[in-house]
Amino acid sequence: MIPQDHPRYRSLVVRERLAEAARDGVVSLEGLTSHGRGEAFDYLIGEVTMPSARTAERTAAAMIRAARHPVISVNGNTAALAADEIAALQQASHAQVEVNLFHRTEERMKKITALLLEHDVDVLTGTAERLIPLSHDRAWSLNEGIGSADLVLVPLEDGDRCEALIAMGKQVITVDLNPLSRTARTATLTIVDEVTRALPAVTAALSDLTDDEAAGLIRHLDNHYLLQTAISEIATRLIHALD
Amino acid sequence: MIPQDHPRYRSLVVRERLAEAARDGVVSLEGLTSHGRGEAFDYLIGEVTMPSARTAERTAAAMIRAARHPVISVNGNTAALAADEIAALQQASHAQVEVNLFHRTEERMKKITALLLEHDVDVLTGTAERLIPLSHDRAWSLNEGIGSADLVLVPLEDGDRCEALIAMGKQVITVDLNPLSRTARTATLTIVDEVTRALPAVTAALSDLTDDEAAGLIRHLDNHYLLQTAISEIATRLIHALD
Repeated sequence: MIPQDHPRYRSLVVRERLAEAARDGVVSLEGLTSHGRGEAFDYLIGEVTMPSARTAERTAAAMIRAARHPVISVNGNTAALAADEIAALQQASHAQVEVNLFHRTEERMKKITALLLEHDVDVLTGTAERLIPLSHDRAWSLNEGIGSADLVLVPLEDGDRCEALIAMGKQVITVDLNPLSRTARTATLTIVDEVTRALPAVTAALSDLTDDEAAGLIRHLDNHYLLQTAISEIATRLIHALD
Repeated sequence: MIPQDHPRYRSLVVRERLAEAARDGVVSLEGLTSHGRGEAFDYLIGEVTMPSARTAERTAAAMIRAARHPVISVNGNTAALAADEIAALQQASHAQVEVNLFHRTEERMKKITALLLEHDVDVLTGTAERLIPLSHDRAWSLNEGIGSADLVLVPLEDGDRCEALIAMGKQVITVDLNPLSRTARTATLTIVDEVTRALPAVTAALSDLTDDEAAGLIRHLDNHYLLQTAISEIATRLIHALD
């Protein structure tokens, strides 16, 4: 039991929830370490959405709205942390949801699908094929999902997969708290924000973006500039953190 | 298998070792997340010992040498990552080693003690008492160890416990990659470095520090200044990371 008076209570509760999900087989042990990395970066940005992330989130909404066939790719950590937020984003858009795992087993696929269904996510099912040019199990995906998508939203992604999707000619939006990661640098658009803040922000923007603003955001998209801005925001915060 | 020429080979091997230690019950699932946080900060500092950390490591050696009764407090992550480094530090100093866990069970206490003994660490044993004013299980410690120590070296510590030890009038040296953490700010001395780089550096300094240098380092110890320097070093590196 975590004492409620612990100053980092929320972060510790989320950490315990993930540990529980790991015991249940939804989250992999490597996924727990990944979560820790995210925690550290979120700590550095002050656990709030930075201005650059706000712009990225509105741009993501514009891109999803303009996409012919957007797919949200969900892994164990995303499902454990943000099943409700995925359901809401799916309802506000025309995006499909596909489960795609780095540490893929049939059992984990089933558990994560069941978890998402419980949270009213409409999960794409079918027969997976080796569609993505990767040596590991994340090559497997659905032809009617990621295989034919023009845009893939991949929160908490790994660098290899992001590169492979880009090489397939797809637009890739990622949610990654590390603005220096290979995923962050490779994606078409990177949202440097915590996933349970990022997804609702995209969902909200889908309903309030005008067509003009959306067109402007897409026209001016410059992911390197957004990342550099995120880094400056973090560095500025860091320098003054002990004041 | 991770290819040896992978740019992040060492980091990936260490992550696998910790996942394995979690399967064995040495590292808690929460400990994997903590390790991920450390990974993120180590990534930011470039996985090298910063100049400020080098000073902190030499200061730590001076403080340990000057202490009447120094104790190294070891948790699951420290044991899994750095058992050999603890053995070497213990041999180079007159420090005792006590196992102290946040997620304390008799089984984990036994496993971690056995792991340390395998690596030639001389582990203090006895009947633990609730000596530290804390609500959780880390209150338990040994009267002949941490209870009567004047200096405690606590790598990878949590903020509560660091504060409690300081409130008990002890000097606390911590190894913490996050220069903003409560532990980092509360400790008498914080080494912002990765534990398997930090401990050998302290061990090496114990043999080459002159008495004059040691006295000077202790006299001039200013942890806030060291942390501020560490933060500046990180921020400078960050700003240029995308160049």
